Amino acid sequence: MIRHFLSLSSFSNRDLQALVDRAHFFSLQPQQTDQIHHLLARKIFANVFYEPSTRTRCSFEIAAKRLGADVVNFVPENSSVKKGETVYDTLKTLESLGVDGIVFRHSDDHVLDHLRDRIQLPLLNAGAGKNEHPSQGLLDLLTLHQEFGDLKGLKIAVCGDVKHSRVAGSLMVAAEMFGMEIYLCGPAALLPVPKSPVVKHAVFDDILPVVDAVMMLRIQLERHQGLDLDARAYHTQFGLNAARVARMRSDAIILHPGPFNRGVEVSDDVVEHPKSRIFKQMSNGVFARMAILEWAMDRRSK
Amino acid sequence: MIRHFLSLSSFSNRDLQALVDRAHFFSLQPQQTDQIHHLLARKIFANVFYEPSTRTRCSFEIAAKRLGADVVNFVPENSSVKKGETVYDTLKTLESLGVDGIVFRHSDDHVLDHLRDRIQLPLLNAGAGKNEHPSQGLLDLLTLHQEFGDLKGLKIAVCGDVKHSRVAGSLMVAAEMFGMEIYLCGPAALLPVPKSPVVKHAVFDDILPVVDAVMMLRIQLERHQGLDLDARAYHTQFGLNAARVARMRSDAIILHPGPFNRGVEVSDDVVEHPKSRIFKQMSNGVFARMAILEWAMDRRSK
Amino acid sequence: MIRHFLSLSSFSNRDLQALVDRAHFFSLQPQQTDQIHHLLARKIFANVFYEPSTRTRCSFEIAAKRLGADVVNFVPENSSVKKGETVYDTLKTLESLGVDGIVFRHSDDHVLDHLRDRIQLPLLNAGAGKNEHPSQGLLDLLTLHQEFGDLKGLKIAVCGDVKHSRVAGSLMVAAEMFGMEIYLCGPAALLPVPKSPVVKHAVFDDILPVVDAVMMLRIQLERHQGLDLDARAYHTQFGLNAARVARMRSDAIILHPGPFNRGVEVSDDVVEHPKSRIFKQMSNGVFARMAILEWAMDRRSK
Repeated sequence: MIRHFLSLSSFSNRDLQALVDRAHFFSLQPQQTDQIHHLLARKIFANVFYEPSTRTRCSFEIAAKRLGADVVNFVPENSSVKKGETVYDTLKTLESLGVDGIVFRHSDDHVLDHLRDRIQLPLLNAGAGKNEHPSQGLLDLLTLHQEFGDLKGLKIAVCGDVKHSRVAGSLMVAAEMFGMEIYLCGPAALLPVPKSPVVKHAVFDDILPVVDAVMMLRIQLERHQGLDLDARAYHTQFGLNAARVARMRSDAIILHPGPFNRGVEVSDDVVEHPKSRIFKQMSNGVFARMAILEWAMDRRSK
Repeated sequence: MIRHFLSLSSFSNRDLQALVDRAHFFSLQPQQTDQIHHLLARKIFANVFYEPSTRTRCSFEIAAKRLGADVVNFVPENSSVKKGETVYDTLKTLESLGVDGIVFRHSDDHVLDHLRDRIQLPLLNAGAGKNEHPSQGLLDLLTLHQEFGDLKGLKIAVCGDVKHSRVAGSLMVAAEMFGMEIYLCGPAALLPVPKSPVVKHAVFDDILPVVDAVMMLRIQLERHQGLDLDARAYHTQFGLNAARVARMRSDAIILHPGPFNRGVEVSDDVVEHPKSRIFKQMSNGVFARMAILEWAMDRRSK
Repeated sequence: MIRHFLSLSSFSNRDLQALVDRAHFFSLQPQQTDQIHHLLARKIFANVFYEPSTRTRCSFEIAAKRLGADVVNFVPENSSVKKGETVYDTLKTLESLGVDGIVFRHSDDHVLDHLRDRIQLPLLNAGAGKNEHPSQGLLDLLTLHQEFGDLKGLKIAVCGDVKHSRVAGSLMVAAEMFGMEIYLCGPAALLPVPKSPVVKHAVFDDILPVVDAVMMLRIQLERHQGLDLDARAYHTQFGLNAARVARMRSDAIILHPGPFNRGVEVSDDVVEHPKSRIFKQMSNGVFARMAILEWAMDRRSK
């Protein structure tokens, strides 16, 4: 059974919790031990990014190297590469080259749906389409777990362009699994219709004092000209600034998947506010991806 | 004596057979042994690709890593870099940086001719001009050897744009060395005049039932507008499809150096036909390049 | 105390001499020893180049790998990336990802000034703005040390576009520290006003017979159209050719930071003239950077 990592929804609660726990374990090792450095010795992963993402690519690459594995960067040659069969041929090529797993990003939501049964090595979703970004979902769970322990019952506001956010997509999947409550805020045109009983629309300033965490999403205003919002107007209405942070609960935290726009969805003084876990999320991303790579290689005794 | 790997023709039959045998040996190790992983420990190879080729670059990179070596990718800064002396300066720079070998690709047929005696470390031809692609040639020999054992007397049809194919160039070199017979098929304008008694022109459908292997070549029709062929017409006349495959001998195999155009020179159902060795060739490419890198470093006792 | 490597001027004479000595030690090890290969085992450096530089990047990468460390290449996604805070966010991201040091290049002279106290891991200047290129400075010192031993009192002519040369900038810093004398030559419009008593303007052909070393700088004539010089005129007036080399002292040497323009600032026959240390400088660059990386990681007992 090939261990693809395509969506958080393919895990049982227990297995996903085990992944969070393993990522947590990695986060507690300030120095690499010999043992950790040899967990994936001689494994070679391929990064195949049809959409560029330096951060996610580097995060997976560092995770692999921390476990003693190596990485090759396979740059699809033609940006206008056709979908479907051609992606299949590329993945099959990498399978033939003998890599041990493929870290994959593509703009198409469903490109992997018909490929997963045809590729005989683990495919690791590093962002596909606008639906899911499960490694980011895992790092968010790790961050919440470090802060609050049990995930059940946590209330999280997600503010911004939720409709086009694969990060929010993966969080909503996890929320249903673990019984978290998600409150979607932001311009109405950018909020999806909730598909789960644990997801609700809310008014940002109303929900702010209630939640355990606020996840701010990057907004690319140039893509939403119909909204008639400029950066300043957006910041006034939906940006997280010191005044809003002051209204959050004392133990509540701030999340952002990055990269962030200072002065748009977050103000300068919020990025490294004591409540902010933004850079910690980036650190946690490496630990989460270490757990994912190890899981995909099936290297742990159960 | 610097061990450049520039052309199959620079090898004796015996030495080339030894390389094939060594590649075959590597292909039989499903798991990397400690010993193999340390064969080139601490060696550093540089990839210097003046023409992009993700597949060949990755294949060499994975081969190096399987042997415990490391790789740096040196991207020529200026795509309009001048030939000759400037290439010399780049290669001399890499020699000065202390790399152990240079994997090199360039569009010029003869760029290495006057450089080989001036560079004091192995140059490994990863495709130069349209003449030779000797590492591809070696993997083709490996694939034929795995299938048929002795290479002598094998009959191979090569179909497509033979004139511009460095893969076919290297195969014809090897054919003369090992006594294989090559039958060139395809649009007459794209076939070179045979320069060797073992190479003949043939009609594709006539030769198909006779040969041990068919090597289909990628055709880029947009480059050959004078031929007045579209993809469908080409496929009808020269494409390998199920009907044609049915006329091949029972033990004959299908080769293609990749990347392939489905529906042009090969039909969809042929790519992974039981007779097809197309993806196996990609696997063999890594084993062939492991043998080449090891040979260039002169690491085996003879 | 974070060990940034930003300018040679931040070192005491003694500490800088220790770095030169250590680089010299590395240059004397033709084969890597086990010990050297493990000095930085498991360290991961990030290359962050806002300006492309294949040579310097590869030199740092090879230096890291010779010490057993690994490297990730972080390519800033957007070439029009904004300065200041955004660079901070990028560096903070890499700090969060857990890399051990950042090799950094940027076109802005002062981009690191306000960042050095805010980033909690070593920043290694691989060329910032037009002021300093301290790793190149160190390799120049190593080359002079190998040749002449004591640096004190050495006379060096620097010829070309000194004003825009960060290499010359770092050399002038070192000259003042070690008591070398620098003579600036070239088109008057491209020479800075000397800011140090050890730096003087000079006429190239007058100073040539006097100096211990001539450092030729790359000139990009297309950037200086106001000078009304073409390549041939420049070469006649300021290029180093065999006739000029013949007028140099018998033990004097030729330096050039590369990449060089044959036929402009140096003639073809000078590049590998017995007096030339141009390619040796490239080799020394790896040894110098090994010393820098090791120093930044503070791995040596003092």
